[in-house]
Amino acid sequence: MVARNDISAEERLIARFFGPIATHPGALGLSDDAAFMTPPAGHDLVLKTDAIVGGVHFFPTDAAQAVASKALRVNLSDLAAKGARPLGFLLSLAIPREIDEAWLAGFAEGLRADSVLFGCPLFGGDTDRTPGPVTISIAMFGSVPAGTMVRRAGAKVGDSVFVTGTIGDAALGVMLREGKNGKWNLSEPHRQHLMSRYLLPQPRNALAETIRTHASAAMDVSDGLVGDFGKLCRASGVAAHIEVARVPMSEAARAVVAGDAATLETALTGGDDYEVVCTVPETKAESFRDAAKAAGVPVADIGKITAGEGVRFTDAAGKALAFKRPAFSHF
Amino acid sequence: MVARNDISAEERLIARFFGPIATHPGALGLSDDAAFMTPPAGHDLVLKTDAIVGGVHFFPTDAAQAVASKALRVNLSDLAAKGARPLGFLLSLAIPREIDEAWLAGFAEGLRADSVLFGCPLFGGDTDRTPGPVTISIAMFGSVPAGTMVRRAGAKVGDSVFVTGTIGDAALGVMLREGKNGKWNLSEPHRQHLMSRYLLPQPRNALAETIRTHASAAMDVSDGLVGDFGKLCRASGVAAHIEVARVPMSEAARAVVAGDAATLETALTGGDDYEVVCTVPETKAESFRDAAKAAGVPVADIGKITAGEGVRFTDAAGKALAFKRPAFSHF
Repeated sequence: MVARNDISAEERLIARFFGPIATHPGALGLSDDAAFMTPPAGHDLVLKTDAIVGGVHFFPTDAAQAVASKALRVNLSDLAAKGARPLGFLLSLAIPREIDEAWLAGFAEGLRADSVLFGCPLFGGDTDRTPGPVTISIAMFGSVPAGTMVRRAGAKVGDSVFVTGTIGDAALGVMLREGKNGKWNLSEPHRQHLMSRYLLPQPRNALAETIRTHASAAMDVSDGLVGDFGKLCRASGVAAHIEVARVPMSEAARAVVAGDAATLETALTGGDDYEVVCTVPETKAESFRDAAKAAGVPVADIGKITAGEGVRFTDAAGKALAFKRPAFSHF
Repeated sequence: MVARNDISAEERLIARFFGPIATHPGALGLSDDAAFMTPPAGHDLVLKTDAIVGGVHFFPTDAAQAVASKALRVNLSDLAAKGARPLGFLLSLAIPREIDEAWLAGFAEGLRADSVLFGCPLFGGDTDRTPGPVTISIAMFGSVPAGTMVRRAGAKVGDSVFVTGTIGDAALGVMLREGKNGKWNLSEPHRQHLMSRYLLPQPRNALAETIRTHASAAMDVSDGLVGDFGKLCRASGVAAHIEVARVPMSEAARAVVAGDAATLETALTGGDDYEVVCTVPETKAESFRDAAKAAGVPVADIGKITAGEGVRFTDAAGKALAFKRPAFSHF
């Protein structure tokens, strides 16, 4: 007898669900052990990995398509903040036995749609069974002209501090998901807005080139504005003054904070914003605003870099605010 | 009051355990959101990701150092088979609450030692808590001169089939670990040999350049020689004849098979070998042997590529062998 060249169930699964996302010729249709690509000449690679775990970073009941988008977008957000253009990604997917083909089909569709939207094809993957929750690890690589990756270090005294979009929606959305919103009296559209901002980050890749050409330092806001911006200042060896009244918040978030003042701290420290905070020299601030407008990304000037150490947050009356727990941490 | 620029527990953990492995300047000491590197000019990147899950790919009681090595080496093995030189890796680590600092210290030491041994520094990582088992996902990138990545496709009729090292040790080692070795009567050194081959793969990166310059097709043997070589033949559109008596097996594995003939199939189909199977044109076979010898990697000629479809495995008497389950699959 002859051992036939059987195609395994795993190969079939990969070909069916993930093959259509592997559009780069060097991915070899996911049929080889590795992929190859020719990096753009004169450019640096920018490398990032971030994982999301069921029950930790998303709710087990979240739609598979949204889970896939979130897994990709938390990585895309970092590339945006670093001024990098996405080139592609690798996927490592651990799934429990109860995951069925309908879930995988939804997951693959979420990946496919975002890989087209953000121009980042799949270069390879690994699927495994796990006795634990769904665990999705993405390794993403992008490029910048050599030597131009925007870092956390680089902010200078006198630079303006800008933040994209709105802050706090996702953290308030989690409170809604967890039913911790006893005192809130929200309209249904506001409720939906906050929930969706947690479910589906909107990374600012449209602003990447503008950040690269204007910002002295930048990072994405994933663990809360207060804690993350503190990291940027520490890396840059500077202090800052942030006027909380100028931190952009959505109508929905403002409605929550108006009725429940304690949620202001949640909004500023809670995480999952996937916006960008960056510092821009005074001489480039106007050009930065114009370029952001052209890119369709709202940006707000929330404060200034100062000399020293630590970040002062003041309210509209100029009174300093303190935070119990400046950043989200898993540890 | 002023929100101090506190260093979080997560940052401290990363700096302490993983900082020493991030030796490339573009890793920025793991203190930024992403890393950068300048890819070697005139080269392609080779990209690979593979994860290992506690209770699936390793035993929860395995030493943390060995777990780290295994996580890296299963990826290094793919780079070796593709003829690529490692450049670095990204780590995504999900750990349950019961993991303590001693485990993390051992894990980091395993990564560090292998990152030095194989010349692949850490470029970035992500650590998360999980309610499931330890899950380690590595994304590894390497390089080859442009256009020279060795693929599964490419084997030609008349090529010799070579395999490195020995086949079957790890699969028999798992049987030992699981206590499924009732009839075996092994010496302690043989026992230890088989167990260690499962615990700690020995990827053939020393042979990568030789494979790149000699092999028409190659892949690493991770899911069993029979199944994996079947994939290579299918990708190449060829058939093959393998003489099982010429498949290199360790003394320990031969001792097992001599006493328990059914284990021959386990050895040939069981997986976790992390050897390389490759095809080499007749004109290059002698040079391949010489280069392998110079690299200190044992290679054995186990058969020939033929026309058609399917792989024939014959025993010493020329009788064809059949396998119930040609390859390991999680699905």
